[in-house]
Amino acid sequence: MDYREVESTAEYLARLETGADWRQEIEDLARAEDVEAGWFTAMGAVQDAEVWFYDQDDQEYQSVTFDEPLEVAACVGNVADLEGDVFAHTHVVLSRKSGQALAGHLDAGTVFAGEVYMRAFEEPLVREHDPETDLDLWL
Amino acid sequence: MDYREVESTAEYLARLETGADWRQEIEDLARAEDVEAGWFTAMGAVQDAEVWFYDQDDQEYQSVTFDEPLEVAACVGNVADLEGDVFAHTHVVLSRKSGQALAGHLDAGTVFAGEVYMRAFEEPLVREHDPETDLDLWL
Amino acid sequence: MDYREVESTAEYLARLETGADWRQEIEDLARAEDVEAGWFTAMGAVQDAEVWFYDQDDQEYQSVTFDEPLEVAACVGNVADLEGDVFAHTHVVLSRKSGQALAGHLDAGTVFAGEVYMRAFEEPLVREHDPETDLDLWL
Repeated sequence: MDYREVESTAEYLARLETGADWRQEIEDLARAEDVEAGWFTAMGAVQDAEVWFYDQDDQEYQSVTFDEPLEVAACVGNVADLEGDVFAHTHVVLSRKSGQALAGHLDAGTVFAGEVYMRAFEEPLVREHDPETDLDLWL
Repeated sequence: MDYREVESTAEYLARLETGADWRQEIEDLARAEDVEAGWFTAMGAVQDAEVWFYDQDDQEYQSVTFDEPLEVAACVGNVADLEGDVFAHTHVVLSRKSGQALAGHLDAGTVFAGEVYMRAFEEPLVREHDPETDLDLWL
Repeated sequence: MDYREVESTAEYLARLETGADWRQEIEDLARAEDVEAGWFTAMGAVQDAEVWFYDQDDQEYQSVTFDEPLEVAACVGNVADLEGDVFAHTHVVLSRKSGQALAGHLDAGTVFAGEVYMRAFEEPLVREHDPETDLDLWL
């Protein structure tokens, strides 16, 4: 395990804009405040969602699109540098009106309402290619 | 996107009381400590749960009741003022013994065991009616 | 409800090691930094998972094993003392490539990739037997 003690520089509450993209909104917050490393939790609802699942054997992401209104029951993620730009690695748990839960890596989703708490850290996080998983990982 | 930098005034760990209501316990913590704005994550188990799903077209909440023991695999929410009283906006992911996950907006649930981490912020959060979504939103 | 105001002593970001056990990695972080009380959120993916569900009537854990790659869509937990050793009480929401979500108490899971944020608190947390639930609870 690799780890690092970090120092928080700021913390934010955000309300995401209805009709905008969930992940881009979080990245826009990070850009607006020059957050190079951050951690967030969030909740709300989306009008649709494109969720990715990483195939650990083929080492490729597979995508599933849910073109329907969904609650965002939980969202956990972090902000890091990926190839010189801000990237918000965003996982979500969604739900249908039956209560059925869906989950995975959120590539995109149209915000219905979103509430986010983010902490920013002093130490930058930089994603680099990891040969074992073929993912871009930090630390 | 609307956002605000916030200052934490305190952080709390709580153990919810067996038999009490999950959301009311969180609101009672906020009231006991005069928390007007807060963010929490939590986990545990409930004896039953009433989960809401917001119908984005009809702009009404629909309710589903699960009258069975469930793990609380994840709970994310925040404390704000709603019409002069404390309101803990609470989303949860629950699970059955098969591992099947259920999720949504938690209106009520009888605590079996609950562990909560809450941060309180200096700046109050006040929910006001948002005409576009017909929800009470802050910021 | 029992609660306590806590003071944070440090915060950490960790990347879990591919092939290691998810929960043990978190406990190893706590041991390495002498964290006697902590709270964490995390995300990533596992190669398999053993998930427990607590039978509230029989007061016994039941186990379900998922021997397949899964996203870790959300992970919430805390670090406390249990019988003199570090114990990371870890709940997770997992997902299959269909987007189907599974969830519960994570006993074990082989890390594919894992990203963790942990806060450490000054005040120790000690789990003790609770006769009503037959669980080891803190506070």
